[in-house]
Amino acid sequence: METYEILRDLAVIFISAKLFGLAARKCKAPMVVGEIVAGLIIGPCLLSLVHPTDFINQMAEIGVILIMFSAGLETNLQELKKSGLIAFIIACVGVFVPLAAGSLLYMCFYGFSSFGTDEFFKAVFTGCIMTATSVGITVEVLKELGYLKSRVGQTILSAAIIDDIIGIIVLTFVLGFKDPDSNTLLITGKIALFLVLSVILGYVIYRIFKFYDERHAHTRRIPIIAITLCFIMAYVAEKYFGIADITGAYIAGIILCNVRDAEYIDRRVSINGYMFFAPMFFVGIGLKTDFSTLNGSVVLFALGFVLVALLSKIVGCGGVAKLCKFKWADCAKIGVGMMTRGEVALIITNKGLDMNIIDHSFSTAVILLIIVSSIATPMLLKYLFSKDNAVAHAEQ
Amino acid sequence: METYEILRDLAVIFISAKLFGLAARKCKAPMVVGEIVAGLIIGPCLLSLVHPTDFINQMAEIGVILIMFSAGLETNLQELKKSGLIAFIIACVGVFVPLAAGSLLYMCFYGFSSFGTDEFFKAVFTGCIMTATSVGITVEVLKELGYLKSRVGQTILSAAIIDDIIGIIVLTFVLGFKDPDSNTLLITGKIALFLVLSVILGYVIYRIFKFYDERHAHTRRIPIIAITLCFIMAYVAEKYFGIADITGAYIAGIILCNVRDAEYIDRRVSINGYMFFAPMFFVGIGLKTDFSTLNGSVVLFALGFVLVALLSKIVGCGGVAKLCKFKWADCAKIGVGMMTRGEVALIITNKGLDMNIIDHSFSTAVILLIIVSSIATPMLLKYLFSKDNAVAHAEQ
Repeated sequence: METYEILRDLAVIFISAKLFGLAARKCKAPMVVGEIVAGLIIGPCLLSLVHPTDFINQMAEIGVILIMFSAGLETNLQELKKSGLIAFIIACVGVFVPLAAGSLLYMCFYGFSSFGTDEFFKAVFTGCIMTATSVGITVEVLKELGYLKSRVGQTILSAAIIDDIIGIIVLTFVLGFKDPDSNTLLITGKIALFLVLSVILGYVIYRIFKFYDERHAHTRRIPIIAITLCFIMAYVAEKYFGIADITGAYIAGIILCNVRDAEYIDRRVSINGYMFFAPMFFVGIGLKTDFSTLNGSVVLFALGFVLVALLSKIVGCGGVAKLCKFKWADCAKIGVGMMTRGEVALIITNKGLDMNIIDHSFSTAVILLIIVSSIATPMLLKYLFSKDNAVAHAEQ
Repeated sequence: METYEILRDLAVIFISAKLFGLAARKCKAPMVVGEIVAGLIIGPCLLSLVHPTDFINQMAEIGVILIMFSAGLETNLQELKKSGLIAFIIACVGVFVPLAAGSLLYMCFYGFSSFGTDEFFKAVFTGCIMTATSVGITVEVLKELGYLKSRVGQTILSAAIIDDIIGIIVLTFVLGFKDPDSNTLLITGKIALFLVLSVILGYVIYRIFKFYDERHAHTRRIPIIAITLCFIMAYVAEKYFGIADITGAYIAGIILCNVRDAEYIDRRVSINGYMFFAPMFFVGIGLKTDFSTLNGSVVLFALGFVLVALLSKIVGCGGVAKLCKFKWADCAKIGVGMMTRGEVALIITNKGLDMNIIDHSFSTAVILLIIVSSIATPMLLKYLFSKDNAVAHAEQ
């Protein structure tokens, strides 16, 4: 392929991602839904204008690394500490109920298998995909409704953030066990070592970066050094610790989230992300989706997958909220608020595809889940909060 | 190669580019020199930490396209109209003097031969390789020095762009002699058609974009649409008109240089450029350098080739600038600014290799020319402009 041929692919991807993203927003759906649909339309599924190439995959990989780095940078450690125990409990239950339910669903469809087998691993991975709440969509909806700073809003937000961290730790452990020859103790040790090193070295890096940043604030070198740190951590995590590169990138973001220029770095990372790399990731998902494998059982599995993924979050998070003495109405809001899935579910699915853990029929299920949850959540939340208002009005 | 391996390459390239770039600035040399040196050091020439890959080449291609697009966006059309005729004359002389001098050099080394023979053709082709100025490095240096929008800067930029087009027309004619099947008239017609279409369609696109921009100023979609236009024009130029993609990108920039958000677009393009793509281009030049084929006679020819290529541009462009009533100091700047060679020289060399016109010793000479000119031009330009400032200060 001539080098200039990539320009054509890039042009088609950028413009279609933007067009369908805007169309999705007009339909009150998140823009990423539009970008995935763009990929479905321009890709081999429909128009065949663009085919997935190595270059597109590599750009997409950088895209997802930047998204995770940005998510890490935007983490508010103080807020996380304050919102404390309740959010943590909700997040834990919100991870483990879908994890168990997802695994069970897979086994119901494809047979029960004993611990340690490939099939058992696939089942657990299916659960893994269901764990991560998409903070982005939830935040945007709560903001739009004006309830982000309410107690319920703050609880959902903190739980969604903690849920991301727990989800990634769970994923890391699950992926560590992928290799049947692998030494369980060694993997657990590696992961523990990585987390310990992340805390210790992370703190050292944070102090050095903070010191340097205060002397060279708002210079070009700050975001470049930050991005380099992100890439090195992502690479080292995957290469030497067998931990997903996205986890490394996320931790790199958390390490830098309290430096003075965190927002400045995040802004530059985001500009690179939204202009070049993130559309490559979301459109790339559409490009890689292959409906030719669709058949009755896949569709049935996808429907079950969506149902279980949504209900397990509502029941898990809503239920534990009730135990934490929230009102029933608020429990419903917390459950619904936690049920959105987005880029993290896709990222985990992609990882699974790359590692040949799952097959392409899973993309279909996950894409369906994202589309359904990101359309249903805003509508349900709007309904639940408006009912609240109606009651409040009636009481006045 | 695992996808995550690119993260390591990127981290090494980014951090070394920044380090050597800053070191170059400390030594009062432009940062791009440091970036090229970084490529020589981390590449196969020395440390072999990073090897040129398809991905790096493609990122570098996007890098040079963004640099040219940005240069186009920063074009002052009023200034260009003013400098247009003079730039055209400088470009013409800047093509024909190196063409003649290069042919003569070949004949001095390998014997004079009569018109129409194979050897005569080789000589003319040697001249052809010397014709195209690589404006990328010069633009970056002029920007860094803050003289891109000066009269001299605009003259160099315009002349370098016109020089590209004339160089391509000359190459087309020369190749026409070699291959009796190629239709020289058709190719010349295509080039003319592209320029005419650029003006007509360019004006239409400008009006539409201006209209849209005024309704959606400062939104994310504006830079994305602009980049898409840039990529489409670069692609169409190369694919359908046989014109270098960088020329298409530059013209796309010129089309948008008068819209309200031109600066807003440029800022976003530049952030993408300096953070990701531009270092890939400059480091990439160093990475691709291979000194292993060097021997005595090749070195001698290469040295002659470099010397003639540089001097013929300085004498040709500087001399004709003097005839156009520029001051001697400005003539020197124009001559030096026009002497950089880059990817176009490599593309022409590649073409010659593919068609068995020249042998591999030419690659060494051309790469040496690119390295020497890309290191010498920034340093000389910086020196010439600083002398100017010193005079200006003395006069105050």
